[in-house]
Amino acid sequence: MTMVPPIEYDRASAEVRAVYDDIMKTRGTDWINNFRKALANEHPTLRRTWESVKQVMAPGALDPLTKELLYLAVSASNGCAYCTASHAAAAKKQGMTPQIFAEVLAVVGMANETNALANGYRVPVDARFEKLF
Amino acid sequence: MTMVPPIEYDRASAEVRAVYDDIMKTRGTDWINNFRKALANEHPTLRRTWESVKQVMAPGALDPLTKELLYLAVSASNGCAYCTASHAAAAKKQGMTPQIFAEVLAVVGMANETNALANGYRVPVDARFEKLF
Amino acid sequence: MTMVPPIEYDRASAEVRAVYDDIMKTRGTDWINNFRKALANEHPTLRRTWESVKQVMAPGALDPLTKELLYLAVSASNGCAYCTASHAAAAKKQGMTPQIFAEVLAVVGMANETNALANGYRVPVDARFEKLF
Amino acid sequence: MTMVPPIEYDRASAEVRAVYDDIMKTRGTDWINNFRKALANEHPTLRRTWESVKQVMAPGALDPLTKELLYLAVSASNGCAYCTASHAAAAKKQGMTPQIFAEVLAVVGMANETNALANGYRVPVDARFEKLF
Amino acid sequence: MTMVPPIEYDRASAEVRAVYDDIMKTRGTDWINNFRKALANEHPTLRRTWESVKQVMAPGALDPLTKELLYLAVSASNGCAYCTASHAAAAKKQGMTPQIFAEVLAVVGMANETNALANGYRVPVDARFEKLF
Amino acid sequence: MTMVPPIEYDRASAEVRAVYDDIMKTRGTDWINNFRKALANEHPTLRRTWESVKQVMAPGALDPLTKELLYLAVSASNGCAYCTASHAAAAKKQGMTPQIFAEVLAVVGMANETNALANGYRVPVDARFEKLF
Repeated sequence: MTMVPPIEYDRASAEVRAVYDDIMKTRGTDWINNFRKALANEHPTLRRTWESVKQVMAPGALDPLTKELLYLAVSASNGCAYCTASHAAAAKKQGMTPQIFAEVLAVVGMANETNALANGYRVPVDARFEKLF
Repeated sequence: MTMVPPIEYDRASAEVRAVYDDIMKTRGTDWINNFRKALANEHPTLRRTWESVKQVMAPGALDPLTKELLYLAVSASNGCAYCTASHAAAAKKQGMTPQIFAEVLAVVGMANETNALANGYRVPVDARFEKLF
Repeated sequence: MTMVPPIEYDRASAEVRAVYDDIMKTRGTDWINNFRKALANEHPTLRRTWESVKQVMAPGALDPLTKELLYLAVSASNGCAYCTASHAAAAKKQGMTPQIFAEVLAVVGMANETNALANGYRVPVDARFEKLF
Repeated sequence: MTMVPPIEYDRASAEVRAVYDDIMKTRGTDWINNFRKALANEHPTLRRTWESVKQVMAPGALDPLTKELLYLAVSASNGCAYCTASHAAAAKKQGMTPQIFAEVLAVVGMANETNALANGYRVPVDARFEKLF
Repeated sequence: MTMVPPIEYDRASAEVRAVYDDIMKTRGTDWINNFRKALANEHPTLRRTWESVKQVMAPGALDPLTKELLYLAVSASNGCAYCTASHAAAAKKQGMTPQIFAEVLAVVGMANETNALANGYRVPVDARFEKLF
Repeated sequence: MTMVPPIEYDRASAEVRAVYDDIMKTRGTDWINNFRKALANEHPTLRRTWESVKQVMAPGALDPLTKELLYLAVSASNGCAYCTASHAAAAKKQGMTPQIFAEVLAVVGMANETNALANGYRVPVDARFEKLF
């Protein structure tokens, strides 16, 4: 951990341990990643973001794999190395194959190209795209 | 069209018409959107990006709806209004419901939050995330 | 002007007028754009950015057209509508043709695509690219 | 290669070798960089992006050096380390001197500053910038 | 509202009204902005983001004005027009003067310039910056 | 230094030394960071950005600590590792505690989430937010 010390379970406060325990139980794992260990330096943000991720990533109209692929796509597009690596791993656990991974990145690449072109030409939104629902 | 004049079918060159015809046939529609009409000012880019999108968005390991959701997620994350609107419309055509739309954006929002946190804390990638496949 | 009132020449302070005069003289024009009129609400930033732009965009190892194309490319890539429009106009004044404009945007689009792919695959920099000069 | 194994020429499929051969012939080199070796895990994206780059970067209204400088500028602005390093190397091969490199980055920096200012003040596009061509 | 219909108080569900009531009470106002009316199309995200913002923006080691200035700075830097406008208004309510607004944007502009330069030169982090706390 | 050699004081030109001397005197330190040593390869950019930073970061309506926190927030949001690390160090020197650091990043994260949501829903700016001052 570069900016702040990682908070290991052994020296964590009760509030942090409670979140760590819930993460491990929910994820069915026995370890805590570096991201959580960094956030644990201020437990309200650790708890809030964990509760948020749990809610957002729970099965809904979209299944967990699709949600992880979306998370991965945004992270790759933003160039966030940590989140790209961690959500690619999470997606793999949900069933992402190498072919799916390649297709996700192909869409991400294409989207970034046409986003830049649409912005560069300053293309106005077509009337029929204005109202979605 | 703000930066360049939109190229309407009537005054389009043969090269542009060929792409327009293929777009309408492939998409099963009878119109061309503002993005294509802008790109048509230089037909090689019109053709190249159309052929690329056709390849990337074709059914593969991922179905067309999932691909459109990924495209939408990246476009929303990048703040590209045109692509957000046009790919939301395309996704809706593939079956995206209001609930799916809301869940996609919830993931996009959450990913942007944790991307920023991971970057701000400069969290090192965990060893077990280093190698994906 | 949305966030702050535009500062017109007539009601500008002496400090602002001095910058406005230098802009019009240097650019060989008789008007001030909305960007400068917004910055003029706080004259030190107006002066500082104008002096900086004047220095950066002056002919050097690169000619003024190339510099404007670079400015345009970055602005389009960032999705800044104002800067895309204003620097496209400036580039046109320096000789940018519709074909050049289209080629600039094609490169911008392609760069955004491969940037996203390189980030998504987390490609390590090749040893021979490590040292440039 | 972190996320996926690099595909070396020796164990590459015929489709991948065909692209590798074309890259080396076109570029006049005898090696393949890490980016291509990553993309080679899914050959359609390898081929498509290579064909696209070849088309986009070919001499046109703009010469190859200017195109590489634009590619470099966008990559640096996006903070893509891989593309910044690889396109800086490509630009150097086309004649980029240390002075040109510094001038490119100076423009990139200035563009990012004024992009942020224009967005922050929410400056409306001047009427005379609305129509470019 | 472009993509989804705004949910007005009158036709809002009990879950949405409960959040609206809390927003108005907490903020000491009698209206709901367009952002909340859009999110209200899916009440879990409305509630979650409102609870998160309430927690994050509450007085802590930093006072509310400073927090709003940070929110504004990030929104302006990201080019999010809606958030720039809404958080500038919120900051003004907390005491932001025109001079403070101008200074915030000057820092945002400068940060974007040097961010781009640091990325372009690929400057390695100095050893003494590696560990913050 | 990866792309260009760092310019150490000993072999620096008179122009570079003059800036280095002013930096060390103004900052009250006896060393020059990697960012300046990279920029020193082209002294006009070194001088210009230093003079600009000096002006922008000087005490004004905002105190130096608040300015450094804004700089840090934007750098973290942009994912610029160098600037995040260097401005976090500068902010700490001005009094930033671990708690303040955590609160800054919590705001940065939240802003990025709602920026993405506002863009994704394409929320129109409320009439009462349109005019700030």
